Amino acid sequence: MSHGLPSQPAESFKARRRALASRLGSERAALVFSGVARPRNYPDNIYPFRPDSHFLYLTGAWIERAAILVDGDKDVLFMPPADPGDLIWHGPTPGWAEFKAGCGVDEIRDIAELEGYVRERGANTLATLPACDAVTRYGQGSMLGRSWAAPGTGVDLDAADGALADAMIGLRLIHDASALEMLRGAAAATVEAHLAGMAATRPGLRESDVRAAMERPILARDMSTAYGSIVTVHGEILHSHSYDHRVEDGDLLLADVGADNGGWAGDVTRTWPANGKFSPTQRTMYELVLASQEAAIAMLRPGVRYRDVHLAAGRVIAQGLVDEGILRGDVDNLMERGAQGLFFVHGLGHVIGLDVHDMEDLGDRAGYAPGRTRASQFGLCFLRLDRDLEAGMAVTIEPGFYQIPALLAEGSELTAPFDADGTLDRAALAKFADVRGIRIEDDVLITAEGSEVLTAAAPKQPEAVEALVGTAAGASA
Amino acid sequence: MSHGLPSQPAESFKARRRALASRLGSERAALVFSGVARPRNYPDNIYPFRPDSHFLYLTGAWIERAAILVDGDKDVLFMPPADPGDLIWHGPTPGWAEFKAGCGVDEIRDIAELEGYVRERGANTLATLPACDAVTRYGQGSMLGRSWAAPGTGVDLDAADGALADAMIGLRLIHDASALEMLRGAAAATVEAHLAGMAATRPGLRESDVRAAMERPILARDMSTAYGSIVTVHGEILHSHSYDHRVEDGDLLLADVGADNGGWAGDVTRTWPANGKFSPTQRTMYELVLASQEAAIAMLRPGVRYRDVHLAAGRVIAQGLVDEGILRGDVDNLMERGAQGLFFVHGLGHVIGLDVHDMEDLGDRAGYAPGRTRASQFGLCFLRLDRDLEAGMAVTIEPGFYQIPALLAEGSELTAPFDADGTLDRAALAKFADVRGIRIEDDVLITAEGSEVLTAAAPKQPEAVEALVGTAAGASA
Repeated sequence: MSHGLPSQPAESFKARRRALASRLGSERAALVFSGVARPRNYPDNIYPFRPDSHFLYLTGAWIERAAILVDGDKDVLFMPPADPGDLIWHGPTPGWAEFKAGCGVDEIRDIAELEGYVRERGANTLATLPACDAVTRYGQGSMLGRSWAAPGTGVDLDAADGALADAMIGLRLIHDASALEMLRGAAAATVEAHLAGMAATRPGLRESDVRAAMERPILARDMSTAYGSIVTVHGEILHSHSYDHRVEDGDLLLADVGADNGGWAGDVTRTWPANGKFSPTQRTMYELVLASQEAAIAMLRPGVRYRDVHLAAGRVIAQGLVDEGILRGDVDNLMERGAQGLFFVHGLGHVIGLDVHDMEDLGDRAGYAPGRTRASQFGLCFLRLDRDLEAGMAVTIEPGFYQIPALLAEGSELTAPFDADGTLDRAALAKFADVRGIRIEDDVLITAEGSEVLTAAAPKQPEAVEALVGTAAGASA
Repeated sequence: MSHGLPSQPAESFKARRRALASRLGSERAALVFSGVARPRNYPDNIYPFRPDSHFLYLTGAWIERAAILVDGDKDVLFMPPADPGDLIWHGPTPGWAEFKAGCGVDEIRDIAELEGYVRERGANTLATLPACDAVTRYGQGSMLGRSWAAPGTGVDLDAADGALADAMIGLRLIHDASALEMLRGAAAATVEAHLAGMAATRPGLRESDVRAAMERPILARDMSTAYGSIVTVHGEILHSHSYDHRVEDGDLLLADVGADNGGWAGDVTRTWPANGKFSPTQRTMYELVLASQEAAIAMLRPGVRYRDVHLAAGRVIAQGLVDEGILRGDVDNLMERGAQGLFFVHGLGHVIGLDVHDMEDLGDRAGYAPGRTRASQFGLCFLRLDRDLEAGMAVTIEPGFYQIPALLAEGSELTAPFDADGTLDRAALAKFADVRGIRIEDDVLITAEGSEVLTAAAPKQPEAVEALVGTAAGASA
């Protein structure tokens, strides 16, 4: 889809724009760009276009080369006029009148007029956010007199743009009814992918076979994936994006796959035994990670600090490792030293919404409450979210256990202190050689009373998982 | 894959680089960049990275932020050093020594040294080509003193860079053994996708269900699609990239889907009846398009001008339309007026290789022989290839028949002259209302003796197609 009307009522976008204007105050108008498609190898062969998330939030419109101006109580959508050639190559597409009604804006103007409009009005009366695609970002920077670095090299916003960023964060953190409807759609497709993946798995396939089985139901719903799928028997490779290992009898398969529903993300991880039966050691560790995840979810409610939930989940892991004899010592002391971070190396989760790591285009500004910053301790330093929870937020809860060779190698900087004083019992750990990586992840909505797991229909109790694995007729492609 | 060694022998890349140096002469060295991943919605959420095709051709290396320098008989690969953090997040990845051996280069240097190297050596001793990703292109432009416009807005190369473009075109047009091996792999996966699509089709599904069934075997082979799939019951929408129509009994389904095998493209279109049986009118038009395609393929051999093949394919269509009473008049005269272009609106095909429209990043420089330019006549003006064929070239052959409402509307600029003198018989055309769009496309290698259809295993005889449709067990997802 490169030219699509909003799939939700105009009123919901109008309400968001009024709320934005009210947060932003009357001093400046907001100008948010949709961006352009990115070429894959030449200009006409593009990656599937996806509008900027802030633009999508405010308009619902799936269009390139557009910008929404929110100016007090007036909304103007700048976009290209219809190209007569489109009728030949792209068929009938909605026109300006339909976008005006569909997005509920007061006026549509030709995007070609934007530069003149900005010059006349004065760039300093506008607040904007840096587009993530380089073409828009460079053009936007020159039009508005911003001196941003290239995409991917950090975001340094001036006061005006920072105020817009904070206003967008304030809105987008708390999901409205339309947002929730989209998130539920993404969750349903994501669950279906995991059911298909478990059913399709059997030893002898390649990881790519399982990935293909998981992405098929997402594509069949006319959705895309929300991020690069991870489907691997090497769950300890946290950002594994290759799919060429053979799935062997005795392997655990870790799948982190989510659907994108009209721009809204699902994000679920499940880990299952390739042959349909956890080994005793796999089951022990699986149940430990599951206990950690369930303990974390049970804590979720408004007012709770997410960092405390992360630490509580880590404590369950630490206690479990002590119980198995892998770590020795007092759990409080182990936690203080970050010993559980040797195995549960990443953060417990992140906010989720239009972006799978919602608003990560703004760095930690969205994930970290004002005044809070990243910790320096290994493990905790990777936590993407440190806010007090509020009803309407959606977060992922995704503890894990990994044996990462580079981290755990004898003599490594990280393990040395724990080896030196006997905290780490490598003989006890060696018994778990068939557990390379486990992660269990759900998307959870914070409610007034506590929380609701949006992706609860993806099985995670060990018996339920075992019962599903390998049940598809032709488990291969 | 974001950091991968070549999948073919170093010797093949070395041979290509020596051939390039010899074509380029000793005055300048070639510097070709791999590019960077493009963010989807924030820097860490990227589209699947694919290196620049020229870089891939010369190195086979699947790496970001790299550049290959071909300097006479010396090859230097500039690339980033290993990041120790990669071991944690990405697992073990090949290092410099492995790339040196795998790509067969003389030296590996840190990409951070490139700017200094260029300054010291003098940018005017280097020839380069503009990257298609904006970040690389802007950086490259400023490093090398080129003033290119943003990607997608045309390519205007100076003499030095133009000489490199011509040398690359000369090489890449004629596929070597390694290239052919990759193209055959892409063709095999592409054929499998079409078999799966036919088998999965039945009335009542959505287009997205069929697309999902087709892309599954591509993903299962650990490949991607080479371009945005077209899977639609509205074949007359030539660049249709939505998949939300219901597949109705009586519809034809047109699928233009190809696999990317390590960067090399497949590109096949088939059209089949949703219910497994062509209607008499559908069958008539299908057989006409097939006859046109077969006539075109039969003409392919070294020395033949591709434009003549395009015209011959158009003549078969024109004759067929006369036979059906849709067009009236002398075929020579109809061809001269471009009457067949009302229905066969696009070009017969294009070169195929690393890019599905090979080297289209260089505009018409690859597709059109020196001195030849686009025609102005509607239909012919869309022809992407006007060269004399040579053994080792690969081309697509893809005639079609479409009823595009915007083109054929009574009173439209294009049809008016044909309506005015009775050339177009709308009553005869109306009988073919159930034929919205048909295209039949194969990938064909030019050989010394004639040609070889690389994608011949995808059924296209009407009976063979009918026999396959709907044969998959659970035809839905």
